[in-house]
Amino acid sequence: MAEKLSHYNAAGEIAMVDVGDKPTTQRSATASAFVAMAAEVIAALPSNKKGDPLQIARIAGIMAAKKTAELIPLCHQLPLSHVAVEFAMEPDGIRISATASTSAQTGVEMEAMTAATVAALTIYDMTKALDKAIEIREVYLLEKTGGKSGTFRRERAE
Amino acid sequence: MAEKLSHYNAAGEIAMVDVGDKPTTQRSATASAFVAMAAEVIAALPSNKKGDPLQIARIAGIMAAKKTAELIPLCHQLPLSHVAVEFAMEPDGIRISATASTSAQTGVEMEAMTAATVAALTIYDMTKALDKAIEIREVYLLEKTGGKSGTFRRERAE
Amino acid sequence: MAEKLSHYNAAGEIAMVDVGDKPTTQRSATASAFVAMAAEVIAALPSNKKGDPLQIARIAGIMAAKKTAELIPLCHQLPLSHVAVEFAMEPDGIRISATASTSAQTGVEMEAMTAATVAALTIYDMTKALDKAIEIREVYLLEKTGGKSGTFRRERAE
Amino acid sequence: MAEKLSHYNAAGEIAMVDVGDKPTTQRSATASAFVAMAAEVIAALPSNKKGDPLQIARIAGIMAAKKTAELIPLCHQLPLSHVAVEFAMEPDGIRISATASTSAQTGVEMEAMTAATVAALTIYDMTKALDKAIEIREVYLLEKTGGKSGTFRRERAE
Amino acid sequence: MAEKLSHYNAAGEIAMVDVGDKPTTQRSATASAFVAMAAEVIAALPSNKKGDPLQIARIAGIMAAKKTAELIPLCHQLPLSHVAVEFAMEPDGIRISATASTSAQTGVEMEAMTAATVAALTIYDMTKALDKAIEIREVYLLEKTGGKSGTFRRERAE
Amino acid sequence: MAEKLSHYNAAGEIAMVDVGDKPTTQRSATASAFVAMAAEVIAALPSNKKGDPLQIARIAGIMAAKKTAELIPLCHQLPLSHVAVEFAMEPDGIRISATASTSAQTGVEMEAMTAATVAALTIYDMTKALDKAIEIREVYLLEKTGGKSGTFRRERAE
Repeated sequence: MAEKLSHYNAAGEIAMVDVGDKPTTQRSATASAFVAMAAEVIAALPSNKKGDPLQIARIAGIMAAKKTAELIPLCHQLPLSHVAVEFAMEPDGIRISATASTSAQTGVEMEAMTAATVAALTIYDMTKALDKAIEIREVYLLEKTGGKSGTFRRERAE
Repeated sequence: MAEKLSHYNAAGEIAMVDVGDKPTTQRSATASAFVAMAAEVIAALPSNKKGDPLQIARIAGIMAAKKTAELIPLCHQLPLSHVAVEFAMEPDGIRISATASTSAQTGVEMEAMTAATVAALTIYDMTKALDKAIEIREVYLLEKTGGKSGTFRRERAE
Repeated sequence: MAEKLSHYNAAGEIAMVDVGDKPTTQRSATASAFVAMAAEVIAALPSNKKGDPLQIARIAGIMAAKKTAELIPLCHQLPLSHVAVEFAMEPDGIRISATASTSAQTGVEMEAMTAATVAALTIYDMTKALDKAIEIREVYLLEKTGGKSGTFRRERAE
Repeated sequence: MAEKLSHYNAAGEIAMVDVGDKPTTQRSATASAFVAMAAEVIAALPSNKKGDPLQIARIAGIMAAKKTAELIPLCHQLPLSHVAVEFAMEPDGIRISATASTSAQTGVEMEAMTAATVAALTIYDMTKALDKAIEIREVYLLEKTGGKSGTFRRERAE
Repeated sequence: MAEKLSHYNAAGEIAMVDVGDKPTTQRSATASAFVAMAAEVIAALPSNKKGDPLQIARIAGIMAAKKTAELIPLCHQLPLSHVAVEFAMEPDGIRISATASTSAQTGVEMEAMTAATVAALTIYDMTKALDKAIEIREVYLLEKTGGKSGTFRRERAE
Repeated sequence: MAEKLSHYNAAGEIAMVDVGDKPTTQRSATASAFVAMAAEVIAALPSNKKGDPLQIARIAGIMAAKKTAELIPLCHQLPLSHVAVEFAMEPDGIRISATASTSAQTGVEMEAMTAATVAALTIYDMTKALDKAIEIREVYLLEKTGGKSGTFRRERAE
């Protein structure tokens, strides 16, 4: 199993995997994250008159998706054709879905994961003064399409 | 409560908070993250001959800490005096602790959170071909010292 | 007069000016920019239900201020203690004021100028589909405090 | 008209527009900027023996074009096939033209605008010690080719 | 000969060369570097229990290859399909080979050179406390394939 | 000797060394590099009418010094008070000296090394079409002042 770890060559050395022979196809991935916080903090968010923390988190997530290859050492640089970050208010926190798409030789799973995570960190940063127990959890891949491995879908945690 | 959201001024508009009048003090923060994965994947990690995914994750976490102000829109740029990322193997995953320190006018909570999160994303990236159900969770602040609010400590989740 | 060009040494060669002997003082600068656009485009901006282009421009300006030393070749890296970007709607466009502050050995004039300009470019990017004649103008220093040269103030153009 | 603001989806939420279905075509854009300064400052520029501020501004503009997607939150990352920045000395300032080209699914208008603007900011930075009244103005799109909307050309302001 | 300097246009002005009319082909380049150090320092490297300086240098080289267009002013942004950095221990130092590949309109020579050089600088950084006489040398292109100029190969220095 | 490798903690794990207890002092470092090339290529450089490759290399070196902590994984972020890059034409190549200064808790050796190296890579990039045998060599620390270890000076290689 060890040789199936990503980003290792036959000699067990780290490399940015050679994707030069893979076909360029349409690929998309959606990742999930959840920022757990107290109900009072959630209630306070929309009452802010002129600024919405979720908007800032959305932009941070989109911008971070474009920086994925700078953050994750062995990720390929991929020109993203689309990035979107969505939020759903739940009683005990904020659920984040981040989608990234590209037409490339490798997938955008890490771009979606990075967008979801940085959006979550930004929400944390905006609300941390209100609640010291905020926690980011349930960061996982929700869906992946395109590429040799085909479509993958995971049910959300209940 | 709304006006206590971080990074808003009196008019409810977003700004990078003015810390110009705060004293420069020694500050430190430690954040936690957990990468849940199947026992077989954990077992496979150390058997790789020449490269250790955790080393790459450690470097990615340290480098990400230095990029925090580029990722989190309203974070101040802080010259870090120390960053460390530690791992503990557990039966159902890898536990990450990331510590950042500085001597500055504001704290390094987000730097520690960012280091822990990017280290977790890098472990995810190295192992995702082995296990599609990998999940990042329990991302929270473990400890914070320095600054007006003093020392904060949280027990690890059991 | 030629030798008074900034960023040249005695031999006329370019260098990042040595500020090592200058005292660390509190410094602040405010820059102005104006995005001229048709009245109909201005009217359309606030009617957008869930997102406000000015919020995105504000964040872009704040983040760009932190990147000034990466953009302007001979600028020093300065840890900003405060950045704010304000907008005023006028009949023929949007007026931007960007303020940056630091405690450092050199001033933050370029950080304020960069924040104002990138905020203006972002407004342009959000509205360019509506009006091909949009123009950025009146980008100048409004105010500067701190440092050997003392306080400077300029009246806004009428 | 509101729904025609760029970078909003049908629900009025911000997203990086999906260009995945657009054809890859040859695209080019040219932007203009003008740095207004006193005649004495303009006269001083070429007399510097070993370094020419315009060369530095040219390089800064070219490098900034490559950073556009990092600065403008919703811009796509585009691999530029060509960037050029030209200057013309006029009695009351320096006129800048910046051109960017690519073969991509979306246009390079913002890349040209960013190159022109950062070149202007760099000239400002090199000359600001000589003239406190320097002003950047007339930043607009001069020409755009390629893509569905076809060729656009604007006459320079007189 | 002067007009054959790279990155100048017909008027002798600097520009990012227009590669828009060149065909997209498979390209690869390998660069070499050598970090000369005392035999005792080389002997000390593998004895470190938990971390291997060469692993860090490998990651630094790979990440730097992705940053080439940010460092070398007139380089085009190229999405790399593969990057690898290899080391060979020699009696008087560490020999580095860095390979980069892409499918693009221009070559990846500078990406390979940058990867080799930053890997060398990182080894230097990890060992500099042990030996003040460490020196980086023999940084050159070993091999280049693809593009109009065809394959180039250079023998290693003896 | 192994435990004296830089950037390892007592357990042999990599970390960004804790400099929090070191005093802030004035520090400076100068590094050297040499770009060996054919005499005809050297002769061709100054004959270019409007642009000088060395100017571009100087700016690239200065900008790279500011990026050192992004490139070298365990380097601290240091606000540089001064950076300069000088060139000397020799019969068989171009000699580069790069100096960086700061007031900080750790030294700027890597900043000077990075500036010299990236300036050398940029000269290589500008001239590589003229001479395939260009080689970068003699990259080493020339001088270091400040900090606990005091002043270090090395004679240039003959």
